[in-house]
Amino acid sequence: MTTRTTTSSEGRTAGPAVRLGVDIGGTKTAVALFDERDAVLARATAATPAAAGAAAVVAGVLELAARVLAEPAAAGTRLSTIGVGTAGVVAPDGRTIAAATEALPGWAGTPLAALLEDALGAPATLLGDVQAFLAGELAAGAALGARGAVAVMAGTGIGGAISVEGTVVRGGHGAAGHIGHVPVAAAEGHRCPCGAWGHVEAVASGPAMTALLRREPGHAAARDLRAVSAAAADGDAAARTVLRRGGGALGAVLAGVVNTLDPDVVVLSGGVLDAGPWYEDALRAELAARALPLLRGTRVVRAALGADAVLLGAVSRAPTG
Amino acid sequence: MTTRTTTSSEGRTAGPAVRLGVDIGGTKTAVALFDERDAVLARATAATPAAAGAAAVVAGVLELAARVLAEPAAAGTRLSTIGVGTAGVVAPDGRTIAAATEALPGWAGTPLAALLEDALGAPATLLGDVQAFLAGELAAGAALGARGAVAVMAGTGIGGAISVEGTVVRGGHGAAGHIGHVPVAAAEGHRCPCGAWGHVEAVASGPAMTALLRREPGHAAARDLRAVSAAAADGDAAARTVLRRGGGALGAVLAGVVNTLDPDVVVLSGGVLDAGPWYEDALRAELAARALPLLRGTRVVRAALGADAVLLGAVSRAPTG
Repeated sequence: MTTRTTTSSEGRTAGPAVRLGVDIGGTKTAVALFDERDAVLARATAATPAAAGAAAVVAGVLELAARVLAEPAAAGTRLSTIGVGTAGVVAPDGRTIAAATEALPGWAGTPLAALLEDALGAPATLLGDVQAFLAGELAAGAALGARGAVAVMAGTGIGGAISVEGTVVRGGHGAAGHIGHVPVAAAEGHRCPCGAWGHVEAVASGPAMTALLRREPGHAAARDLRAVSAAAADGDAAARTVLRRGGGALGAVLAGVVNTLDPDVVVLSGGVLDAGPWYEDALRAELAARALPLLRGTRVVRAALGADAVLLGAVSRAPTG
Repeated sequence: MTTRTTTSSEGRTAGPAVRLGVDIGGTKTAVALFDERDAVLARATAATPAAAGAAAVVAGVLELAARVLAEPAAAGTRLSTIGVGTAGVVAPDGRTIAAATEALPGWAGTPLAALLEDALGAPATLLGDVQAFLAGELAAGAALGARGAVAVMAGTGIGGAISVEGTVVRGGHGAAGHIGHVPVAAAEGHRCPCGAWGHVEAVASGPAMTALLRREPGHAAARDLRAVSAAAADGDAAARTVLRRGGGALGAVLAGVVNTLDPDVVVLSGGVLDAGPWYEDALRAELAARALPLLRGTRVVRAALGADAVLLGAVSRAPTG
């Protein structure tokens, strides 16, 4: 009887197992097919039809999935699992979207895992995109070998993720990792996009720093982080101060997180790191100054995998079927 | 063969298993003998001979252990495990003291687990005292049933502990939980006992608030937190402000921790909570104001077990031999 079942189950496998990684952002959706050694067999990317609503976003994912599954490299393989990293807050069970910002209207409430399972015939697991990003860096990137890690993604917003003893923390509402929403002195009196006052995102994200520079005399035209970066590179003191203050604020927050969790490594990523050395230098200096003496040597590294971290991390945490 | 082994093993047991819980603080050492249902069979307490050095502290523990093991309630039992909650930072392997303050001179480096095992003939496991406290509240107290929890002990200093998915986080250096050393706006410009600037302990511990009140006109004689509390109860505005500011600062820190970890519950304890309602009211208000909308309802409760939390928590996390 056992043998029959096994045979029957193997009969369904058309060949080697492959895993589908999905990365759903507010502007871009990417998918990749991974073999069992984490090599990418095929990949595809498209704009996320965010404004068209959740059903369109899911249809976009399925279209990309069909495309990679139809590639020659996927011929004769069996889809064993689907791992998704998505914008928004994923419910703690990894099945649905618990909350999302206006970047993905209607995304909250989408039973994404079930929809993908029904359409693709393999088990699906969801993580938040930054949670998946950290999982990827833990699996094969800058945090390889670490058990406790903190990841920060500083760009349009400031996202984060936490791992403890190798587990990426989801939290009771799936909201763990919102490092951008930690209060910090340098942000006092500044309103955060979330509505609260004094969160670090209000002074340390790209748009926040751009807005802060615009308030300075002679900088009313600064349009985006690139303008801040260019001004800083030209020696502009106000631009450098804005970048240093943003990086320093995030460094103070990370010192608090390090003192609270004592991680093995802190992984930095995001567009603000490319705005010149001022942000990251201030971040590292402030983190070292505010960390407990015992923790001052905690490793702080840049992410290593680029955009593939989310895709790889999502499949690395997805149980295979 | 299997039966023989079992018989032989049982032959060594002189009766029901009991577990020894040990709580080593800077001023007091307590031990308790627990049965398998977490009931206390015997307990003993003594002053910690801190100034006499580590060997004296260990001798003190062994003396207390001998005393409870000699009590009638322990007759015919077998010591199956020793769980210790201790002041200082416990190494991540739970075997030695990695660091300690001047409250326990010479404590750092003590191979406490091995010393207790050699003397008492049962396996020993160490946790930091606040880590053990949280383990106790998780096992049978205010955090019963929670998987993710944050504990704060606010008194002479501000200690903390974190649990994620039921595991009490030790951290890479054993230092996880140092919530008192999170930077916060209200502490900017204040020096923390750890040497860094701007940590919450610098404005929210009992001694810190007492020192802050002493700086106010007419309060030079305020000697301790009880004096602050008495003044506040008499309607003194400066005393109430100091308490509100301390509690508010800790609330802002806890909002950051909640937004980072999304715990099921926050457990409050420590002497400052008894200084009147001003501290805890401000803490709760600031936590709610700074938490993400999704997390604003996170449960905040007072600890339930009192001093037994450390003893129970220590044995609850100790593998039995």
